[in-house]
Amino acid sequence: MLRSCAARLRPLLVAHGRPGGARLTSTFSFEEVTQKDHALPKPSWSKDLRLLFDQFMKKCEDGSWERLPSCSRHSVQRFQNFTKAFFSGSIPVKEEQISQAKFFPRSFEDGLGFEYAMFWSKDEKRIVCLFQGGLYLQGIPGFLHGGALVTLIDTTLGTHAMLAGGAVMTANLSINFKRPMPLCSVGVINTQLDKIEGRKLFVSCNIQSVDEKTVYTEGTGKKLLLSSCLASSLSLSPSFFFSFVLVYNPHMPINF
Amino acid sequence: MLRSCAARLRPLLVAHGRPGGARLTSTFSFEEVTQKDHALPKPSWSKDLRLLFDQFMKKCEDGSWERLPSCSRHSVQRFQNFTKAFFSGSIPVKEEQISQAKFFPRSFEDGLGFEYAMFWSKDEKRIVCLFQGGLYLQGIPGFLHGGALVTLIDTTLGTHAMLAGGAVMTANLSINFKRPMPLCSVGVINTQLDKIEGRKLFVSCNIQSVDEKTVYTEGTGKKLLLSSCLASSLSLSPSFFFSFVLVYNPHMPINF
Repeated sequence: MLRSCAARLRPLLVAHGRPGGARLTSTFSFEEVTQKDHALPKPSWSKDLRLLFDQFMKKCEDGSWERLPSCSRHSVQRFQNFTKAFFSGSIPVKEEQISQAKFFPRSFEDGLGFEYAMFWSKDEKRIVCLFQGGLYLQGIPGFLHGGALVTLIDTTLGTHAMLAGGAVMTANLSINFKRPMPLCSVGVINTQLDKIEGRKLFVSCNIQSVDEKTVYTEGTGKKLLLSSCLASSLSLSPSFFFSFVLVYNPHMPINF
Repeated sequence: MLRSCAARLRPLLVAHGRPGGARLTSTFSFEEVTQKDHALPKPSWSKDLRLLFDQFMKKCEDGSWERLPSCSRHSVQRFQNFTKAFFSGSIPVKEEQISQAKFFPRSFEDGLGFEYAMFWSKDEKRIVCLFQGGLYLQGIPGFLHGGALVTLIDTTLGTHAMLAGGAVMTANLSINFKRPMPLCSVGVINTQLDKIEGRKLFVSCNIQSVDEKTVYTEGTGKKLLLSSCLASSLSLSPSFFFSFVLVYNPHMPINF
C-alpha cells in the first residue's frame, strides 16, 4: 500500500517541488480560464486595501514580488484525480456536491466575508497577505471573530510553507490574540519561515494594522514536509500528508 | 479611565457572574423574540445530526442538560450599549453596518456553512457541540478547511469558559490536526475544563466522528478571567477583556 502510494506520489512530487529542491514558483499560474481570480480589486474593497494592493503590484513589476491568484472552487476533474491518486477507498462526498462546494475563505459574496490578496517575494522568502474582514465575519459586536482571523492565518501560512519547502501538511497552529480587530478594517499578514528541523517547517506570522502600529494577532504553525517514511511512522497514510498540502487550497493549482 | 471602566463593569459583572461565583445558567434564555434560534433542526440537517440532537434533547428533559440557543445577529441596541459601556472613544464601525453584520459561525445560508447546536451539562460541567460542516467550508477537495474547525472550537471553548468561570477572554488557541474531516459529515466537540491557575482557565476539546472511532482535531484554549488589575498589568483595557467574553458570541445573550 505504502509502496503503491509512493509510486503514485513520485511524479507529483517531482512536478511540484521536493523538500529542499527548487521551488516551482514559475508554475504558479492561474489554473483554468473558466475560474474567476478573486485576488483582484473589487468595488467592495476599501480605499486602504486598494492602495496597499497597488503598492504591491508596483513591486511585482521588476519580478521581485509575485501576486498569487486565487479561485473559489475545485473542479470535479481535480476532485476525481485527487481521490483517484490518494484514496484507495472512496470518500463520503459525491461529485455533484464537489461541483457546488466552495473554498472556505472564498465562499462569501463580494465584500461580506474574506477579501484578500497574497504576494510572494522570492528574494525575501515571505508572503504578505492584504485583507479586509467583511460584515459576516463578526464575533463581538463590531469586531472580527477569532476563527476568521485563524482561517486567514492558516491559509497564508500553508501557502508559505508550500512555497518554501514543497509538499507539507499542517500539524499544529498556535494563535495568540492581542487586540480585537474592527469589522471592515484592513489588515496585513506578514509571514516568515523560522526554522527547519528535519522534516518540520516552523512558520509564523502576525496580523498588523495598515499603519503597523497595532498587532492584532500572532500565529505560528508547524508544517510537516511530506515523506512516506514519516507518514508511516505517524500511522498516517502518505495520501493524507500529500493531499493535505498539495491541494490544500486553490492558491496552489494542481494539474494532475 | 480604569476606575471609570470598572464602575461601569460592576453591575454587569454582578448580573452575569463573577469569577468563582455562581453561574447564571438559569439566565441562559433566548434573547429576543424577534431573533431566530439557529440551534434547532432544519431540513438541511443530516440524519446523523438529527439523531444526535434528539438524543441530547432527551437528556434535557430531566434538567441535567440544557440546549443553548443561538442567534446570528447582534442588535443595534446591543452594539450601542456595548460601545457605550466599554469604549470611551468610538470604534470605526457604523451602526448601519452592525445591523447588516452577522455572527461568523451563523453567517451562511442553511446547510452551506456551520450547522451546530450546543448542549451544556451543569452536572458534568462540559459542553457537547454537535455540528455538520457544509459545502462552503471546503479546504482540500472533499474536506473541511482547518479554519472552519478552529472557528467551531473557538466558539465552543469560549462558551464553556464563560459558563465555567464567568467573564473571560481568549488569550491563546492551540490546535492539533489529526485527520482531515469530510465535507458534510457530522462531528462532535467535547469540551472540558482542565485546570485553573489564578485567573487563567485552561479548556480543551476534541472533535470526533459520530461513532467516536476517529479523532479529527484536538484543541486547547487559554482563557483569562476578567480582572481590571490583570487588564492593567497587560496594558489592555478592561473593556477589551470584558467585551471579548461577555458579548463574545450570541450563545450568551446579554441584556444591558
